[in-house]
Amino acid sequence: MNTNTLTKSTSDIISSDKVEGTTVYNHAGDKLGTIDDLMIDKRSGQVRYAVLEFGGFLGMGTDRYPLPWNMLEYDVEKEGYVVPLDKEKLEGAPRYPHDQMPEYNRDYGRQVNGYYGVDAW
Amino acid sequence: MNTNTLTKSTSDIISSDKVEGTTVYNHAGDKLGTIDDLMIDKRSGQVRYAVLEFGGFLGMGTDRYPLPWNMLEYDVEKEGYVVPLDKEKLEGAPRYPHDQMPEYNRDYGRQVNGYYGVDAW
Repeated sequence: MNTNTLTKSTSDIISSDKVEGTTVYNHAGDKLGTIDDLMIDKRSGQVRYAVLEFGGFLGMGTDRYPLPWNMLEYDVEKEGYVVPLDKEKLEGAPRYPHDQMPEYNRDYGRQVNGYYGVDAW
Repeated sequence: MNTNTLTKSTSDIISSDKVEGTTVYNHAGDKLGTIDDLMIDKRSGQVRYAVLEFGGFLGMGTDRYPLPWNMLEYDVEKEGYVVPLDKEKLEGAPRYPHDQMPEYNRDYGRQVNGYYGVDAW
C-alpha cells in the first residue's frame, strides 16, 4: 500500500492485487481478517463488496464475509482498512464457506446491506 | 465464468478473482491477452481499468496495457471479454513493464483514455 505521506499527489487509484490480502481492523484495533476478494457489478464496474476472510483454525476452512465497500476506510498508518464493527457484530454477520459462494443477487445484497444498515445498490 | 444461459436470474456481480485471468479477444476473434489486474478508484470503488497482460516470449517479461473498463464486453460463448481493438491499435497503446507500474493519476488517465477515445474520469 502507498504510505508516502509526503507526496500530496498520490494516486487515487489502487490495484485489486493490492487490496486483496490487506488487513482489516475495527476501531478498537482488533484485527478482523484480510480482504480475499472483491465483488464487482459487471455492468457499471462498481465494487459492491470487499470479501473478508476470517476464522479458520487447525486446518478448518475460513469463512467469507461480504462487507459493503462503503464501510471500509483505508488507514495509512495501519496500512490496512478500518471498519466500524465490533467482533460480536461480525460473528453474527452473513457469511459463507470459501467453496460455497452464494449467488450475489439483489436478495442477497439486501440481506447483507440490511445487516450492516447501509443502502443496498 | 457463469455460462448458465438457462437461468435468467444470473448474478450481475462478478468476483475480481474470476475477472483476473480471463481472456480478452477482439472482434476479429484474435486473442489479445488476459486480464491481470483491476485498477480501482479508492474513494468511489469504481473500477477504472482492466489491465491486460500481453506479450512475453522465451522468458521476456510481459507488458501491461490499461484498458478503460467501459471498453470491455463479456461474451458468454467465448467465456472471455471482447474489446473493439485491432492488434495494430494495441501495439501502439500505453503500456508498462510488469514491475514498473506508473502512477495512475489524472494525467495518466487522460493519456490512456485519450488514446482509446473514451472519456476520462
